Amino acid sequence: MYNKKAYALGSKRSIIREIFEYSKVRAQEIGTDKVYDFSLGNPSVEPPKEVTETIKNLISTNNQTLLHGYTSAQGDLAVRTVISQNINSRFALNLTPNNIYMTCGAAASLSICLKAVMNEGEECIVFSPFFTEYRVFVENAGGKLVVSNPNFDTLQIDLEDFNSKITENTKAVIINSPNNPSGVVYSEEIILKVCSILEQKQAEFGHDIYLISDEPYRELVYGDVKVPYLMNYYKNTMVCYSYSKSLSLPGERIGYIAVNPDMNNSSEVYLAVCGAGRSLGYVCAPSLFQKVIEKCINAKVNIDAYKQNRDIIYNALTEYGFDCVKPDGAFYLFVKSPDGDAYSMYEKAKKHEILLVPCDDFGIKGYVRIAYCVDKKRIENSLDAFMKLAKDYSL
Amino acid sequence: MYNKKAYALGSKRSIIREIFEYSKVRAQEIGTDKVYDFSLGNPSVEPPKEVTETIKNLISTNNQTLLHGYTSAQGDLAVRTVISQNINSRFALNLTPNNIYMTCGAAASLSICLKAVMNEGEECIVFSPFFTEYRVFVENAGGKLVVSNPNFDTLQIDLEDFNSKITENTKAVIINSPNNPSGVVYSEEIILKVCSILEQKQAEFGHDIYLISDEPYRELVYGDVKVPYLMNYYKNTMVCYSYSKSLSLPGERIGYIAVNPDMNNSSEVYLAVCGAGRSLGYVCAPSLFQKVIEKCINAKVNIDAYKQNRDIIYNALTEYGFDCVKPDGAFYLFVKSPDGDAYSMYEKAKKHEILLVPCDDFGIKGYVRIAYCVDKKRIENSLDAFMKLAKDYSL
Repeated sequence: MYNKKAYALGSKRSIIREIFEYSKVRAQEIGTDKVYDFSLGNPSVEPPKEVTETIKNLISTNNQTLLHGYTSAQGDLAVRTVISQNINSRFALNLTPNNIYMTCGAAASLSICLKAVMNEGEECIVFSPFFTEYRVFVENAGGKLVVSNPNFDTLQIDLEDFNSKITENTKAVIINSPNNPSGVVYSEEIILKVCSILEQKQAEFGHDIYLISDEPYRELVYGDVKVPYLMNYYKNTMVCYSYSKSLSLPGERIGYIAVNPDMNNSSEVYLAVCGAGRSLGYVCAPSLFQKVIEKCINAKVNIDAYKQNRDIIYNALTEYGFDCVKPDGAFYLFVKSPDGDAYSMYEKAKKHEILLVPCDDFGIKGYVRIAYCVDKKRIENSLDAFMKLAKDYSL
Repeated sequence: MYNKKAYALGSKRSIIREIFEYSKVRAQEIGTDKVYDFSLGNPSVEPPKEVTETIKNLISTNNQTLLHGYTSAQGDLAVRTVISQNINSRFALNLTPNNIYMTCGAAASLSICLKAVMNEGEECIVFSPFFTEYRVFVENAGGKLVVSNPNFDTLQIDLEDFNSKITENTKAVIINSPNNPSGVVYSEEIILKVCSILEQKQAEFGHDIYLISDEPYRELVYGDVKVPYLMNYYKNTMVCYSYSKSLSLPGERIGYIAVNPDMNNSSEVYLAVCGAGRSLGYVCAPSLFQKVIEKCINAKVNIDAYKQNRDIIYNALTEYGFDCVKPDGAFYLFVKSPDGDAYSMYEKAKKHEILLVPCDDFGIKGYVRIAYCVDKKRIENSLDAFMKLAKDYSL
């Protein structure tokens, strides 16, 4: 028989996929502009002009055989140099190209990192709400996912709960800030305490616990909010980065893993990352986009558009009486279902042509996610429907 | 502790990497044109002009947010449609887009396929000489690699040996034709017999055995040699394809898995492929190059250049007295060390500035691999050195 676990993963009912299919059909029935689809985290803002210009230059002027040729498994030296310098200048660190491993995006970064550090039966702690694929990657690495609940008022980390979830088997902790699906940025105060707890537990158990910072949304923060760079707070840190959101290139699968040079056994862990990538079938990150990143390291998408969207939808929904934490980053709004049932809110919203994602799978019951990475008009046009939804709940 | 197995894989001495480093240093010492480096399987022929033109069009005329956006996990419907039609028209089959799963290249295709069909402790048979990474991917899927020895005169499959290696635990068989590292194309006669043995064994053991056709070199064959399309010979076949060699795009990581619609439980196996891809961290194949493949499905690299290289080097080396099977495909020549020792031949050749890969890790002792995907001049200039090497062996 084929592999039952792989089959179960491949055939699992996916609510997001169902919404995607429904949205297409419904748009044909009543028109795209009448369907308020907020289900997908696909960036709506164009990639920076530099990206397109760089691709144009690369294919016009370079040796095409070299341009599209294999790079070394850890990535082209030039792009790794530029990335390490960029990190050093922004966060006062001392990375070298040999601390950087280029990947096919954030999912690859995470699955490789986990495979590199975890052993059969060890535990990885995640903070709810969390990106559902964490469970898949942790289990693929032979590990067990342990969920730590948040402070339900702020959706920040609940330090007491976190402390109680760490055991002798804890090998890794994933922090995702700005957070998908809540948009919350964990404060420096919380990060300092999380790291202090981890230091204590490392000393108590006498082994390393790795902090994995999953941060594809780092550049998407609004106002003067700061996202602490975890290597500055905790030695045993690995950063999983992706350019999917920061350059609006999610389909191109380009990102990296940065291994803190000050980590214990840093070079061995880096080699374990190389080995894990090899065993999962990653030969190198896409070569054209490695060169694009090298040339566009300082390029930025227009995040003002996302900020405008956030302000409109957050202000409107709270005015209508919905309960949600104001997101400081990413492009998601995480809304509490007024009757505590995420699926019934999803169904009720659908009647007003609003498509939301019920989030029970994100490790916290009774919330829906609104991805506001859409055209501003869609948000403006949807507000009446949201008002009607609020009335359904007598808010 | 970090994962020891991943570390071992990442830190393993790689002879090809060592040669790569040595080659760079030596080129600086005596000049690039004096170093006859035949170690790397990096295509030397340019990608077809259509590829560059298509990229130029896509980035000039398309919506860039959509162009670089996520595709569905199995790949964009348009490219899967074009690929299935292309397979159907060439091999008289009836695939649909739902039999095609786009991947990040051949290594991804293989690791996903193996993860989709194998269970802990089951066996996968490979034919030596074989691409060394097969062992890594089989072991990552929890399987055990079993090596079947070739007929040593022809390097074709030894049917008796193959038959003896199949056990109740055999779940998969990988066929790589044209073969890396030998360049041998398995004949239709051999394929018919391999498939007939597999049918018998399936009946005997009462379970499916999957034939995995790893065929990145399918389009690189010389003269009127035909490479049998395995779905035409055996129902439980999955094809792992990559455009790395056929379009000279190895760094871009683009390929696919085709699951035979006539296979037992074909749609379940396809879903297992989707699930395996998900668990390994593959979100989708690079989106720009999915669209490139859609538009360039009939594009071809200039394989005449490879054929010329093959003829020059094969004719010269056999004239000098070396023993090798004439390769009908790929861009490798697999040469027997005159004293049976691959490493001493590698060292002796190095003294004449020839860089070859000793192939003991490819599952067959005493051979070296010459990758003739290089500039024709390098081959012509190297012939004197090969003649001297022959004299060292008193050939």
